[in-house]
Amino acid sequence: MKSYLKLDPWKIIEEGFHPELNRVSESIFSIGNGRIGQRANFEERYTGQTLQGNYVGGIYYPDRTRVGWWKNGYPEYFAKVLNAPNWIGIDIDIDGVQLDLAEWKVEKFRRVLHMREGYLERSFTVSKETGLKLNVNVQRIISLKRHETGAVRYSVLVEKGSGRFTFAPYIDADVLNEDANYGEKFWREVVRKKDESHPAGGYIVAATKKTDFHVGTAYVFQVSKNGVPVGEQAAFIEREQYVGHRVAVKADAGDRLELCKYAGIASSLNHEKKDVGPAAAAAAEAAAAAGFPGLLEEQAESWRERWRQADIVIEGDEAAQQGIRFNIFQLYQTYTGDDERLNIGPKGFTGEKYGGSTYWDTEAYCLPFYLATAPAEAGRKLLLYRYRHLPKAIENAARLGFTGGAALYPMVTMNGEECHNEWEITFEEIHRNGAIAFAIYYYCLYTGDYRYLADYGLEVLIGISRFWVQRVHWSEPRGRYVMHGVTGPNEYENNVNNNWYTNTLAVWCLKYSREVLSYVKKEAPEDFHKIRTRIGFDETVETKKWQHVIDNMYLPFDEERRIFLQQDGYLEKEQKTVAELDPSERPLNQHWSWDRILRSVFIKQADVLQGIFLFESQYDTDTIRRNFDFYEARTVHESSLSPCIHSILASRIGDIPRAYELYLRTSRLDLDDYNNEAAEGCHITSMAGTWMSVVMGFGGMRVRDDMQFRGGTLHLNPILPAAWTSFSFRIRFRNNTIRVTVDTESVMLENESGPVLPLMVYGKKESLPENGHLELSREH
Amino acid sequence: MKSYLKLDPWKIIEEGFHPELNRVSESIFSIGNGRIGQRANFEERYTGQTLQGNYVGGIYYPDRTRVGWWKNGYPEYFAKVLNAPNWIGIDIDIDGVQLDLAEWKVEKFRRVLHMREGYLERSFTVSKETGLKLNVNVQRIISLKRHETGAVRYSVLVEKGSGRFTFAPYIDADVLNEDANYGEKFWREVVRKKDESHPAGGYIVAATKKTDFHVGTAYVFQVSKNGVPVGEQAAFIEREQYVGHRVAVKADAGDRLELCKYAGIASSLNHEKKDVGPAAAAAAEAAAAAGFPGLLEEQAESWRERWRQADIVIEGDEAAQQGIRFNIFQLYQTYTGDDERLNIGPKGFTGEKYGGSTYWDTEAYCLPFYLATAPAEAGRKLLLYRYRHLPKAIENAARLGFTGGAALYPMVTMNGEECHNEWEITFEEIHRNGAIAFAIYYYCLYTGDYRYLADYGLEVLIGISRFWVQRVHWSEPRGRYVMHGVTGPNEYENNVNNNWYTNTLAVWCLKYSREVLSYVKKEAPEDFHKIRTRIGFDETVETKKWQHVIDNMYLPFDEERRIFLQQDGYLEKEQKTVAELDPSERPLNQHWSWDRILRSVFIKQADVLQGIFLFESQYDTDTIRRNFDFYEARTVHESSLSPCIHSILASRIGDIPRAYELYLRTSRLDLDDYNNEAAEGCHITSMAGTWMSVVMGFGGMRVRDDMQFRGGTLHLNPILPAAWTSFSFRIRFRNNTIRVTVDTESVMLENESGPVLPLMVYGKKESLPENGHLELSREH
Repeated sequence: MKSYLKLDPWKIIEEGFHPELNRVSESIFSIGNGRIGQRANFEERYTGQTLQGNYVGGIYYPDRTRVGWWKNGYPEYFAKVLNAPNWIGIDIDIDGVQLDLAEWKVEKFRRVLHMREGYLERSFTVSKETGLKLNVNVQRIISLKRHETGAVRYSVLVEKGSGRFTFAPYIDADVLNEDANYGEKFWREVVRKKDESHPAGGYIVAATKKTDFHVGTAYVFQVSKNGVPVGEQAAFIEREQYVGHRVAVKADAGDRLELCKYAGIASSLNHEKKDVGPAAAAAAEAAAAAGFPGLLEEQAESWRERWRQADIVIEGDEAAQQGIRFNIFQLYQTYTGDDERLNIGPKGFTGEKYGGSTYWDTEAYCLPFYLATAPAEAGRKLLLYRYRHLPKAIENAARLGFTGGAALYPMVTMNGEECHNEWEITFEEIHRNGAIAFAIYYYCLYTGDYRYLADYGLEVLIGISRFWVQRVHWSEPRGRYVMHGVTGPNEYENNVNNNWYTNTLAVWCLKYSREVLSYVKKEAPEDFHKIRTRIGFDETVETKKWQHVIDNMYLPFDEERRIFLQQDGYLEKEQKTVAELDPSERPLNQHWSWDRILRSVFIKQADVLQGIFLFESQYDTDTIRRNFDFYEARTVHESSLSPCIHSILASRIGDIPRAYELYLRTSRLDLDDYNNEAAEGCHITSMAGTWMSVVMGFGGMRVRDDMQFRGGTLHLNPILPAAWTSFSFRIRFRNNTIRVTVDTESVMLENESGPVLPLMVYGKKESLPENGHLELSREH
Repeated sequence: MKSYLKLDPWKIIEEGFHPELNRVSESIFSIGNGRIGQRANFEERYTGQTLQGNYVGGIYYPDRTRVGWWKNGYPEYFAKVLNAPNWIGIDIDIDGVQLDLAEWKVEKFRRVLHMREGYLERSFTVSKETGLKLNVNVQRIISLKRHETGAVRYSVLVEKGSGRFTFAPYIDADVLNEDANYGEKFWREVVRKKDESHPAGGYIVAATKKTDFHVGTAYVFQVSKNGVPVGEQAAFIEREQYVGHRVAVKADAGDRLELCKYAGIASSLNHEKKDVGPAAAAAAEAAAAAGFPGLLEEQAESWRERWRQADIVIEGDEAAQQGIRFNIFQLYQTYTGDDERLNIGPKGFTGEKYGGSTYWDTEAYCLPFYLATAPAEAGRKLLLYRYRHLPKAIENAARLGFTGGAALYPMVTMNGEECHNEWEITFEEIHRNGAIAFAIYYYCLYTGDYRYLADYGLEVLIGISRFWVQRVHWSEPRGRYVMHGVTGPNEYENNVNNNWYTNTLAVWCLKYSREVLSYVKKEAPEDFHKIRTRIGFDETVETKKWQHVIDNMYLPFDEERRIFLQQDGYLEKEQKTVAELDPSERPLNQHWSWDRILRSVFIKQADVLQGIFLFESQYDTDTIRRNFDFYEARTVHESSLSPCIHSILASRIGDIPRAYELYLRTSRLDLDDYNNEAAEGCHITSMAGTWMSVVMGFGGMRVRDDMQFRGGTLHLNPILPAAWTSFSFRIRFRNNTIRVTVDTESVMLENESGPVLPLMVYGKKESLPENGHLELSREH
């Protein structure tokens, strides 16, 4: 755990230079706009610890699989969102000496992520033995409004000394992925060009090898001295995969030099390949025309709108407030919900790990956040992404020996094909299939868009159900269906039998598919007929098998403790609790050998609690409490996806201190680097879990499925952590936008838009009037 | 399965050119002398399918680990015996056209492995449209007597046409390992040198990167035309990592050209680094002085001696005869038992797979073969190899979290360090530790060398026992010790709990360690004291814990079927038998996805039967039969280590047809390429299993431990497969050499050397007189 960042409700602040933590800061201070994003690398050369990272959503490379020992069924490649051409680079040389924070004396270093306004700022004073002393301020944005635009304002005030300053803004396409499997480079140059227009600039079009995506990266720049433009004779420099300019300016103490660099990043996802260069150049030029202050203003306006919809205000607890805003900010920097070809990589645009690919995190964690804070279309696009991948999921299952249109969605994917190559995950962590089914259920329930089922949902559900009935088998000794060789969400146990979560989810999928089948058959018989014909669905035979599995699935349960069991044999493990662990051995995954982790009772996240969270209405509070107490004591939370679910359930059973502690852990996971891994990137997808732990945890928000296929009812059961004086959040729900404010005494509901809304608060029916509000006492 | 090789009692014969099977033939026709070895590559350039392979025992490179997803505890590298400089190469060019069997018309191709005499021969006729037609005969040996010597006689008879022949014999050190993890080359050149002496030659000294082993590879050569030496003006050619000569000779129809190439291969394992070049050159020159016919004669003499000790004669069944000789031949080509730094890689010198490293195969399969066919010193060296690695095994265990001098021997090793990186094997296939303990037991029992225990054995046993008591844990629900997270020899099930074999072996190790402890304490108290002090052994505390585990270990057993269970949950699997498998899906590992294999009931080898084989005297015949019938029906024998054990047990329960069928499978595994993988190399270590299936299976040879620590009694229970008219084998046992001949009517025992030997035949006490024989009726 690290605590080097300052608290502030709207800013992330690093004060003082922490070169040893620079990779961590680069992750945390990342910026992006849902299409492009980057780590908080320095503009000027830096020879210290750094992980260069610029990413363009959807632009990936199929990196040849690296594996020690091949297993049948492994994919040939891992598709990765690539480290893209670097557009921020500005080399700065003063009388032949390169500005490099690793080499100069650095003082008053300050890095700020302005979350309200959506920009990154860095300022510092640097000096050399020569007597030169500079105050530098750098601001950088990636425009939410202009999808293909980034900009930097690099300002240098000469405090002492003087010199000849050479600025070299450039685009460098000769970049590597640090995690490239075989050290290969993934880009080839297509075109490099000097931009002849004024201001000076240029662009490179680079193409990914194999996939041949084209990306144009353009820059234009302006240099001024004390506000007066300089540098008309800038020299153009080019070499393979590099274009740049060099401008020299003499400056003395008191002079202020400023370089504004405007970048355009355009890809063949949105343009003809031949046009990506000019399109990038046009974006850069338009940004230059708007000017840096203009862009900053636009950006603040865009973020104002986002925050209006998605902000959570917490009074009385700055750490909690900063944490939740950081999470919401990063989520919207990663995915904005308006391009169904894009998705949410676990690290977003903040690092290379997990390749920027799509995991079950999207459905299980991110969907509720986007449904509640963005138009329903955003959630629908996340679902359509998987619908489009259905044929690949069927191919994937067939490759593993499943037949008859069974679908197994990949663990990790970019284009629908499986990328992961670790047998215990790739072939066994199949609960992901259930998460995709559950997302359909939740989307329809939340939005009331049941039409989605006939159009898309049913087909996916049938594919998934066909998989489950083949993946289980009948156990003679048990007289039940069992499911062997599974890895649950808790990846600290692999290849287990009868994982309660997976078995439960499989049964639920089959039940839900049956219900949807009946619904579509009745409400949209023609669609049903079309689907049946298209996919060769034998309703009688197939649903009979489904029902037999539903009726006869084995779900491990311990009669003595009256808890659901993680899997067969879990109680045979040596029963210890996290409290008994030596703190110096945490996190376990950095101190224990893998076999020791596997054999221990400690889990990185509790599968049973994940299942109880999804199907909470089926369990009474005592059951939830028993399972929570048992598993929370054994959970080390070394998955970023863990503490939020535990926090929500702690809220559910009224254990507010525990809920609060877990909330802090989830909301400040990266800011405080709990698991000592923020250097690799931020845990973007679990940030949606943080949001859930406020809205569904402290807010007690649920949508209860009490009117099958006619929508569910909104429930609220707010509680308030002792450290907070109040909190408020806003949710969209169908045609309403509601603001919920909870303080020590009351719960205030405001119907900001939409008709009168019947809802349940603290288990009682209430009605929120159109344009009105409702104030209720808070229950303790 | 392939059947392209001809049957012959003493030869392996490929008739007709099978370019599509060339990689298979290259494996099968491999030659070696225990120190160096090579695949049966062609001397002349060949542009068809080939896997170049020359190996020098003990010369390895630590190739950086390749793994998809790192797990804590993985080793940094995989040490590999490298593809070494190629010394056989002879380029042949006729009037500017390269001789290349992939490009020329090939007739009468014949490749013969002369097992009796120990050389490889290849002959063929090639022609070109130009009218040129050549009869070629090539003989090659790696000398058993001269450890650093190989030689080739390449003879060309011009049948039609004429031309200018250019021969270019060379050494090429610019070689690759096909399985290099990152495509790196592993050798650097140290010296290259022309040999000024006559005949012409040269050498290269190449060093391995990182490990800096030096290997000198030298050649000298002579060319003759119709028996008259030619080519005094041979030109020396050199370039980086290459030395060679070029000699041109004009030849017409009827002329015979012959090139003899003599090679020396000397390494820094046996010489000062500075001397390896001259040593190699000296070996080559000495070989040239002996001449090719002389070397052939020496070789035949060496092999005559080997065969005298180790041959098995089978009458009436050529396939069986050829199979067993091939196995014995390959074993002695791989390991001769006189250098304790060397060991037996699963593929020997016949391929790259498994890196030429040491596996548990050595102890579990090879030791009995060497004990019975070579001086006891050979077996002792195999044990000492592990004794020398004990400190590394303790380090290895410590890295995984075990304490107090616990030793976990590596799954795969070259120098005692773990090389494997697959968690379910590296961390879990820990039965290897038991095999190493069992080898100590078997060696002492077989040889009577109990002194070994005080000198070396006890220390290893304590390290291993310390591991087992930490690796088990107490299960509250079972009230027993259990062992979780294990992979048995059957690698088609991973990460299982309570693998019967491993649990049984662990208990046996603890018991045996206690016995050895008592024995050494009593017989060699001073040694015991020294050991105790050196390793900090607290006898009272430690053995108390051992005993508690011995008394309370859980061993899975099915009461209904009265069989031992592969592991927890095995009967919950869908119970099918191999007979129900679609033959087109065999071998499963080439047709089924890994998860399907893991979940299925099918096993590659039966762990329970492996355990019954080791501890056979503890089980009655009915128990053995029940377990055999159950597991054999579920075993697909996709491990080369499987059929031999099953064959022995089939013999044990009197199921001779089944024993015979399994014997053929093991003895002709590579010759008939049952598992479609001989192209990667031969299954050298399992060849010792084939030997066991004759001697211990059909011969019923056992050494029963009926005189604790005073030696065991030799038992024989010969049976005869219906297809055989007789078989005979020879074993060393203590001070005796005995020849056993079994025919349809009788069992003949001949005491070829040593004193009178009391032994048990068919369960009855017999006495084999000094220099005498004993003829008994064969029991049916």
